Amino acid sequence: MTALTNAQFRLAARPSGLPKPSDWSYTEEPVGTPGEGEILVELEYLSLDPAMRSWMNAGRSYVPPVQIGEVMRAAGIGKIVASKNANFTAGQHVYGTFGVQKFAISDGAGVSVVDTELAPAPVHLGALGLSGISAYFGLLDVGRPKPGETVVVSAAAGSVGSIAGQIAKIKGCRAIGIAGGADKCRGLVEELGFDAAIDYKAGDVRAQLREYATKGVDVFFDNVGGTILQDVLARLAKGARVVISGAVSQYNNEKPAQGPANYMQLLVTRSSMTGFVVFDYAARYPEAVAELAGWLRSGALRSMEHVVTGGIEKFPEALLELFAGKNFGKYVLAL
Amino acid sequence: MTALTNAQFRLAARPSGLPKPSDWSYTEEPVGTPGEGEILVELEYLSLDPAMRSWMNAGRSYVPPVQIGEVMRAAGIGKIVASKNANFTAGQHVYGTFGVQKFAISDGAGVSVVDTELAPAPVHLGALGLSGISAYFGLLDVGRPKPGETVVVSAAAGSVGSIAGQIAKIKGCRAIGIAGGADKCRGLVEELGFDAAIDYKAGDVRAQLREYATKGVDVFFDNVGGTILQDVLARLAKGARVVISGAVSQYNNEKPAQGPANYMQLLVTRSSMTGFVVFDYAARYPEAVAELAGWLRSGALRSMEHVVTGGIEKFPEALLELFAGKNFGKYVLAL
Repeated sequence: MTALTNAQFRLAARPSGLPKPSDWSYTEEPVGTPGEGEILVELEYLSLDPAMRSWMNAGRSYVPPVQIGEVMRAAGIGKIVASKNANFTAGQHVYGTFGVQKFAISDGAGVSVVDTELAPAPVHLGALGLSGISAYFGLLDVGRPKPGETVVVSAAAGSVGSIAGQIAKIKGCRAIGIAGGADKCRGLVEELGFDAAIDYKAGDVRAQLREYATKGVDVFFDNVGGTILQDVLARLAKGARVVISGAVSQYNNEKPAQGPANYMQLLVTRSSMTGFVVFDYAARYPEAVAELAGWLRSGALRSMEHVVTGGIEKFPEALLELFAGKNFGKYVLAL
Repeated sequence: MTALTNAQFRLAARPSGLPKPSDWSYTEEPVGTPGEGEILVELEYLSLDPAMRSWMNAGRSYVPPVQIGEVMRAAGIGKIVASKNANFTAGQHVYGTFGVQKFAISDGAGVSVVDTELAPAPVHLGALGLSGISAYFGLLDVGRPKPGETVVVSAAAGSVGSIAGQIAKIKGCRAIGIAGGADKCRGLVEELGFDAAIDYKAGDVRAQLREYATKGVDVFFDNVGGTILQDVLARLAKGARVVISGAVSQYNNEKPAQGPANYMQLLVTRSSMTGFVVFDYAARYPEAVAELAGWLRSGALRSMEHVVTGGIEKFPEALLELFAGKNFGKYVLAL
């Protein structure tokens, strides 16, 4: 094996607002040798996720914050270069939280082999990855939609939202997406089969919710928070379920986060708002992946990936593009 | 029957902030005669409730707003003066939403006979009335506390909160009350058996929550909203249930209501926040009243009433005293 060089983005400072170049440090170092029980992975695709911004903050969250100086946390897919772990062999494609780097050494914990015959690698970060699994359990287990009900999804053109809305359709619901921009909204309806899409950048979200959700909103799958959460709370049907999956509108806030001023609509409509973290469903991931894969094969579900090339050097810029909402579907950085 | 004169408080204007004298009109008129199927009730006790403030606002809520010119809505207990309804006889004490007036004519809908042998009339507005029933279903059905869990109640010295905390104790939970003032806090612990009480006017609520709820808060029964809701959200245990029963801190706001800025703690802790309206449980009221009455008889539950005399003329002032938190237990105005 020739000497390999690893390249990494490490967290240099906790950002205030959007991450600046100075919040990152780019490091290079020789790739190490896997020890007994370990594998060496060459990363091919990085998953870029809105939640990454929240991992960069100090304070209590559902996962520990990334420490200053640590390689930035990221999920990815790579190929095993060398294995000293009996569960893996060189040449296999694997999924894991390998970090923003070219090579990773892992003991195999949390690493799973990816079937690239079933679908290309980026799909395993999208519809068949944590995005799809999040949409699956968040919508079905927490949202509990019934056929004929109206499901609203925010960040509907994002990796989780685009799947959640399609699952709502598969389950016989009316699906309304909220997204930013006419192109995304057209894509939701024409390519993914949503019943309606609301461009929050273009118009009055509440007026459009009244128009499209004439009987109110039974399930709201929220990835966004902020004013969009308030707009949907104002339109809840009786006994609605609000799934709090994320709050991307708030992650880059420099001011304190904005709480839903009209949360008393939960009382008015006898509704619930429930926080959801996909990791709690780890034991049931195979169930979700099997069903999602079936839907993909049958054509009931489409996986959208926004694959950006440019290598690891592009990571800081790519993350800003994600926060600017440039992607339709799963944002994947090809290394 | 000699000619009787009715006296009433009607809503004259929708208040901004606390209700001013000019928001009311005091009217007198001759008492009418009950028609076929109707009863004439002479009111003896009015129930004063924080929710009354919300009924005075225009806009979507769980009950229609009181209209301008309408007699202010209020629950009360009175004695039947005359009955042309086969279900009622003169001399009976009855509970109903009779309004802020001395006499009411009713067709009997929503009116129930009150057993003043079981307990004095004010108790039927408190522990055996909607306050107790709200505490019962809100805590047990929505909060679902398990023995050994920590239950926090806000406005714990109020009519609903004082019962909710005691039910938590009956069910084997640790009960922590949040109230305003040292006297109330002492009363919660010494008279009602709460494990601890936090005086939100005196100190750092979050620090005291850390001290008293060492393992976090499993159930929060919230009557208050505002910063207290945020303080408790910051201390939720995993899988906690937040019962939204009211938001008295917000009812008299002139500014837009304050939403919980840290609502993402619901995600961090995988908790839920659910709106609760007691009217949804109307079919099950007898079940609650039977159990509450049993606890009262056994001494497991104490009903606290703050009975104020002064007649109907005192109503506007009494309502302001309620909002200022002068009461310990159920605020009842004796007519």
